[in-house]
Amino acid sequence: MAQYPIDEWEAAALEVQGRLRSTSVAPRFDGNPLEELAPEFASLIKTLVRGRSYADPTLDLKTRALCTVACLVGMGEQPYIENWMGSAMAAGASREEIVELLIQLFTYVGTAKAVTGFAAAKAVFDESG
Amino acid sequence: MAQYPIDEWEAAALEVQGRLRSTSVAPRFDGNPLEELAPEFASLIKTLVRGRSYADPTLDLKTRALCTVACLVGMGEQPYIENWMGSAMAAGASREEIVELLIQLFTYVGTAKAVTGFAAAKAVFDESG
Amino acid sequence: MAQYPIDEWEAAALEVQGRLRSTSVAPRFDGNPLEELAPEFASLIKTLVRGRSYADPTLDLKTRALCTVACLVGMGEQPYIENWMGSAMAAGASREEIVELLIQLFTYVGTAKAVTGFAAAKAVFDESG
Amino acid sequence: MAQYPIDEWEAAALEVQGRLRSTSVAPRFDGNPLEELAPEFASLIKTLVRGRSYADPTLDLKTRALCTVACLVGMGEQPYIENWMGSAMAAGASREEIVELLIQLFTYVGTAKAVTGFAAAKAVFDESG
Amino acid sequence: MAQYPIDEWEAAALEVQGRLRSTSVAPRFDGNPLEELAPEFASLIKTLVRGRSYADPTLDLKTRALCTVACLVGMGEQPYIENWMGSAMAAGASREEIVELLIQLFTYVGTAKAVTGFAAAKAVFDESG
Amino acid sequence: MAQYPIDEWEAAALEVQGRLRSTSVAPRFDGNPLEELAPEFASLIKTLVRGRSYADPTLDLKTRALCTVACLVGMGEQPYIENWMGSAMAAGASREEIVELLIQLFTYVGTAKAVTGFAAAKAVFDESG
Repeated sequence: MAQYPIDEWEAAALEVQGRLRSTSVAPRFDGNPLEELAPEFASLIKTLVRGRSYADPTLDLKTRALCTVACLVGMGEQPYIENWMGSAMAAGASREEIVELLIQLFTYVGTAKAVTGFAAAKAVFDESG
Repeated sequence: MAQYPIDEWEAAALEVQGRLRSTSVAPRFDGNPLEELAPEFASLIKTLVRGRSYADPTLDLKTRALCTVACLVGMGEQPYIENWMGSAMAAGASREEIVELLIQLFTYVGTAKAVTGFAAAKAVFDESG
Repeated sequence: MAQYPIDEWEAAALEVQGRLRSTSVAPRFDGNPLEELAPEFASLIKTLVRGRSYADPTLDLKTRALCTVACLVGMGEQPYIENWMGSAMAAGASREEIVELLIQLFTYVGTAKAVTGFAAAKAVFDESG
Repeated sequence: MAQYPIDEWEAAALEVQGRLRSTSVAPRFDGNPLEELAPEFASLIKTLVRGRSYADPTLDLKTRALCTVACLVGMGEQPYIENWMGSAMAAGASREEIVELLIQLFTYVGTAKAVTGFAAAKAVFDESG
Repeated sequence: MAQYPIDEWEAAALEVQGRLRSTSVAPRFDGNPLEELAPEFASLIKTLVRGRSYADPTLDLKTRALCTVACLVGMGEQPYIENWMGSAMAAGASREEIVELLIQLFTYVGTAKAVTGFAAAKAVFDESG
Repeated sequence: MAQYPIDEWEAAALEVQGRLRSTSVAPRFDGNPLEELAPEFASLIKTLVRGRSYADPTLDLKTRALCTVACLVGMGEQPYIENWMGSAMAAGASREEIVELLIQLFTYVGTAKAVTGFAAAKAVFDESG
């Protein structure tokens, strides 16, 4: 049987969570309904996503966060975009880089989803002061 | 009136195109139907996207290409994903980085779109030998 | 010419509507803008959907309601998801079954749409007391 | 009880079908799996869509067909786009109008879906000679 | 090198903007976050979209606006739908035509997106008095 | 630290896999590119999805499979729809139930995605003889 290093992933998840947490932008999904209604499943997902995936050194955390923003802009999910823009900034991305990424994505997602992305950026920038 | 540096963008577009062109993965959209049916519009779009956006130094080309891949995986557009994986590799991304990005995106896009992304990666990896 | 049993469908629609109506969760689409701006068309759609489709005994009403929830979670349509979770509960689905369905769907729709589904569930559970 | 003029809609549907049928572009959905597996339901849908909706004189048939193309380009459904481009041409739309519509939609749908629309146009234009 | 008639497009964009501006329905995207965070890019997009595309006489402005509404209904983007319904009415579309278009689109987009379209129509109709 | 019963999930996953495997419809995703390029991650996902989710007795396997089909029809993912229709039939769903489900979903997903669902059904029905 496969042996998954769950303990190691849990420790890594905690460390990654700290590096993705902005001091000025509140996380959008702490205590969200998934965590409330299915706490054990939510905890498992967090361990896998943060501990198995984001903690892997193949890609640095800033690149990962920007790619997550790009993916979510493509899907049009505003609160999630805001959440990950805050994390991208915590991982070192500047406002200029986020704006430039959104200009780039305009071509692929069209006006409506691009404006959704810019609205998320404005919310995050305003909050972080 | 606004003055757009079109000539400068055209020169930059040409330079960027060279850096995004893989020697081993054929581009998927050379001579596509947009170019055939609306050649002047296609040319304008290329100038703006490559010359105004990708040529801007705020984000490096490899990060841009990976973000485009991430956005397209979120939208589920297989031939475009293949095209940009080839460009990402031309800009310096390794196979390991692309696979790791897809594992990361699984959480956001779900099984079907993730498998579409992996199918694109397999096509590109097989082609590049 | 085809003979459609419109009268029979209208009677069946009325009966089905009663069985899908929760006593504790308000329907989300009574008097919606489609009904207000195109009343005759809205009435026709209701007759066909409830009287022709949901009244058909090939699938029981609870299974149908859960499948509609699953389809809407895949499409990310929150108010509609809430509406049909209320109907699923009226047709006999428990909270545990709805939460378990959402955990199952996570794999196919990804984080953002899954959280949308859980947010709908929380709204409906809170309302039904 | 509501009285729906089903007979009238069936006659109108037949007339509309004739006006939307191209002599040079084969319809994409004759005998499709919906018709094969659920023939009575498929027939009902056709009667309502063609006889109730497209036959209504509030909007002319060419405008309706172009709007259907625009909607389907927004949804990225290539075979359906081809089908409705053929119908739009049967209803009087020129190739230039279809190309110009696709250039307009680029802004709203982005590169990948726009190219899907142009690919559909090329297929239909090539077939109609 | 290509010569794009940017000055001509800017003049045409201004003229088109006037014809698409309703006296009774407020535009939804004046001063939007894209304009605020990337003003030069926003201005370029407006010039191209209004001056190159909407100003082109191949399709009349009312047909173009209705097609944009149809595309956005297919994508489910409510504020954008409202914006373009206002523009369609400024360009000569009646309420009856907009309602009839939404009834037609129901078949292609399904209940949830159709109700989104009707909700947009109600907001615009209420505002325009 | 959380203790996840991975061994138990692996055993349950194996048992569920057997019950979802049709004798007449080939699985669509054995040896897919996700499994080939990221085998350890693919194995983990299977263990969690089959062993944690589908094996949970809160919902019976046939209802689960039909709900997965409904979700995938809402997302328009044809090969995945085929795969899960085969599994639904292995878990006890009849052809009549699948056709009736697709008729029901038409209202929510519209023509194009419904026809995609019927095309999947036809492929699976033809294969299972």
